[in-house]
Amino acid sequence: MCWLPNIRLSLINNYYMIKTDLLIVGAGPGGYRAAVYAAQHGMKVIIIEASHVGGTCLNEGCIPTKSFVRNAEVMQILKEANVFGLEHLQYNLNFERVVARKNEVVTALREGVESMLKHPNITVVRAEASFKDAKTVMANGVDYMADAIIVATGSKPKVLRLEQCKGRVLDSSDLLALDHLPQSLCIVGAGVIGMEFASIFNSFGVEVTVVEFMKECLPVLDADIAKRLRKVLEKRGVHFCLQCAVKSIDHGEVTFEDKKGRVEKVRAEEVLMAVGRVPRVSDHFKLAGFEYDERRGIVVDDNLQTTIPGIYAVGDVNGRQMLAHAAEMQGIHVVHQLLGQPDGMRLDIMPAAIYTLPEAACVGWSEDECKAQGMEFVCRKSFWRSNGKAVAMNESEGMLKLLTSPDGTILGCHAYGVHAADLVQEVSVLMCRHTTVAELSEMVHIHPSLSEIVKAAAEV
Amino acid sequence: MCWLPNIRLSLINNYYMIKTDLLIVGAGPGGYRAAVYAAQHGMKVIIIEASHVGGTCLNEGCIPTKSFVRNAEVMQILKEANVFGLEHLQYNLNFERVVARKNEVVTALREGVESMLKHPNITVVRAEASFKDAKTVMANGVDYMADAIIVATGSKPKVLRLEQCKGRVLDSSDLLALDHLPQSLCIVGAGVIGMEFASIFNSFGVEVTVVEFMKECLPVLDADIAKRLRKVLEKRGVHFCLQCAVKSIDHGEVTFEDKKGRVEKVRAEEVLMAVGRVPRVSDHFKLAGFEYDERRGIVVDDNLQTTIPGIYAVGDVNGRQMLAHAAEMQGIHVVHQLLGQPDGMRLDIMPAAIYTLPEAACVGWSEDECKAQGMEFVCRKSFWRSNGKAVAMNESEGMLKLLTSPDGTILGCHAYGVHAADLVQEVSVLMCRHTTVAELSEMVHIHPSLSEIVKAAAEV
Repeated sequence: MCWLPNIRLSLINNYYMIKTDLLIVGAGPGGYRAAVYAAQHGMKVIIIEASHVGGTCLNEGCIPTKSFVRNAEVMQILKEANVFGLEHLQYNLNFERVVARKNEVVTALREGVESMLKHPNITVVRAEASFKDAKTVMANGVDYMADAIIVATGSKPKVLRLEQCKGRVLDSSDLLALDHLPQSLCIVGAGVIGMEFASIFNSFGVEVTVVEFMKECLPVLDADIAKRLRKVLEKRGVHFCLQCAVKSIDHGEVTFEDKKGRVEKVRAEEVLMAVGRVPRVSDHFKLAGFEYDERRGIVVDDNLQTTIPGIYAVGDVNGRQMLAHAAEMQGIHVVHQLLGQPDGMRLDIMPAAIYTLPEAACVGWSEDECKAQGMEFVCRKSFWRSNGKAVAMNESEGMLKLLTSPDGTILGCHAYGVHAADLVQEVSVLMCRHTTVAELSEMVHIHPSLSEIVKAAAEV
Repeated sequence: MCWLPNIRLSLINNYYMIKTDLLIVGAGPGGYRAAVYAAQHGMKVIIIEASHVGGTCLNEGCIPTKSFVRNAEVMQILKEANVFGLEHLQYNLNFERVVARKNEVVTALREGVESMLKHPNITVVRAEASFKDAKTVMANGVDYMADAIIVATGSKPKVLRLEQCKGRVLDSSDLLALDHLPQSLCIVGAGVIGMEFASIFNSFGVEVTVVEFMKECLPVLDADIAKRLRKVLEKRGVHFCLQCAVKSIDHGEVTFEDKKGRVEKVRAEEVLMAVGRVPRVSDHFKLAGFEYDERRGIVVDDNLQTTIPGIYAVGDVNGRQMLAHAAEMQGIHVVHQLLGQPDGMRLDIMPAAIYTLPEAACVGWSEDECKAQGMEFVCRKSFWRSNGKAVAMNESEGMLKLLTSPDGTILGCHAYGVHAADLVQEVSVLMCRHTTVAELSEMVHIHPSLSEIVKAAAEV
């Protein structure tokens, strides 16, 4: 047996097995944050990743998208040039430069993650990992064992089964990898990914059509807010076909049926399939023995433990919350358990943002959910158009709903409008601190600032 | 005696005197918010204002400045056009349009305040008010009496006494009223007003020099953060002369002496005097009998009551916090007392923002103040350059300092960088809820979002 800084290498039955305190499969937000946190707290960690560190979020999801979002924001400002006193405006958009900046952003942040993983307590193994049994994970022909194992293999784009599908259909990663702007784009699905790309590519001057099966976009959001946000995009020229079921895709021609059974077609240079993501599970999970489901992912309890003690699953692969920050916090929550340090983490208070222009965000209950549950509640609204900073910014589009129980306990907040993510974040931390709406209304808010929109709702 | 909806008109000794529940002198943020709040809670209110409702903040302060700030932001984006893939960019800035938009913003928001004041319980009297005695305020030849009086007369620009001052010297209201851009601008004073205008006019292409008596700009901010922010403006071309005492101004020529006694001169098309503001007190205050001071304003206790029971003073005129949102909350706090409704308002947790580009904000203790007090503290830092959203936005300039006591209680937060106001606001409400840094570090923050910068500091 030989000791390396963070691994115990044992010769058993003529082959090498490496043992460590914590073994993590997947170096996305769930995996790498847990690795760093555990290492900082003295644990020896091995993290196995076949691709780039940073996961989908950093490499082909949130981060590159947000780089595009910023460019889109700049393009929107130019469209309002007159309002800002800019005359005789001329420019040419070089999309290659937009793509290059996105790649630079991703590389810079990925290097950041790589440098965090250069902790003396962490070993990164660049390989595909597969379970051999409930105690052993194999990678690059080496067996790894640990006191605890975290599975953080993330998710992959869901593919809609169609009667016919011919020609090129992109997923979000493919769309982010395009090196030129298409003339037109048909997006199947008006969830978070579909809506962000609809907003982005519309701003870049691409003709965008969104086909969605449901009655409204963004089911995660309060329907009233989702509708208003959709109308903003419609005004900007995005074409929405709601309550339409896609039947076939044939070389850019998307055929779908509306709720009355009428068949329509949209032709676009590129087609994006954005109908959600599914947990990335593998057949070798069977050898570990924990329960999982192809669609819903790995079954975990509220401690994120799988049905096999000592094996945990965090992030998209457990299908619980499908958000990068949920993955991070779940990973840290597992490490707390391993360290025997109970925490007060509220994984049920899970804010989320949608970076359309303007952006949207939510935490907790929506008005629709309150109604559906038949619970008593109060819905307080405030508007960007009544906020001095928003008006001064020429960003008066937006609405915030603050949901409270009759006793004033804050139940949720859904909003769209510039800085909505920051405002919902404020409500989210206040929910963690069991704040009532009366208490919120007495808290000083900076004037002028967009955060006054939160206070205004509390004062209603 | 006749009854009007909200006033009692009494004929006493052959002249009319109007009595009401609450009389407010001044319809700025301190006055009008108190009026509306009191009216909503059933009080009859008379509010007297000689000028526009909305006060300095709305008419010639924060709001018009923030309209300019948005234009400045657009100009800064254009300066980085290459980064965003914009080639062959050409435009012409029509400053008249910038001014027109500012005026539209002010008018729209002022109409909002006017419509709030159209509450059946409120009477707005458009006149100069003056105290006759501790019980009576006169306006337009009519005497007004009330169970409680709130003085909210605001502040006015401070004027530096110079050896010589010839030619035009602007104050912030004058500068906001200019209808053309000067070639060059010399700003005397690097406080909030001076720095915001330096940032704005630099973005508009004006050659800006700032002359400041102190060692660093923005004494309200942590010195380290103020220095970094100043260096950003210096990089953009703003010229700073620190530790320099202005001696004279002669038709655009500003003469000042540096700390070594060397005399220098700056010549500029316009000169802005921005050396602070002083409470707007009047001689007739003597007739009311409460204590006040020309420089420090009206003396009030922690309940905002003057030395005469029943007379309160809120906002800039009491010289306590000189912030619009402080005025608002002080006014509401007084109304709570009048209603006999004690509140838990924390007027000591007073966040503030400075809308330079990038913006800065602060709440509570700075590192310097902690040191000066000789107290034990922990200073945790986080940086915009390590935040995914900031990097994706191409806004990686910024730093946040989170100050905590050794037991983890949050004492303050000072920051500069995009959305700093929102982030400091989050910390500010957490301070109101007695949150420790350990609790903050366990609260879920949206990824990617700028709010993760707050969490990152808590995790240090």
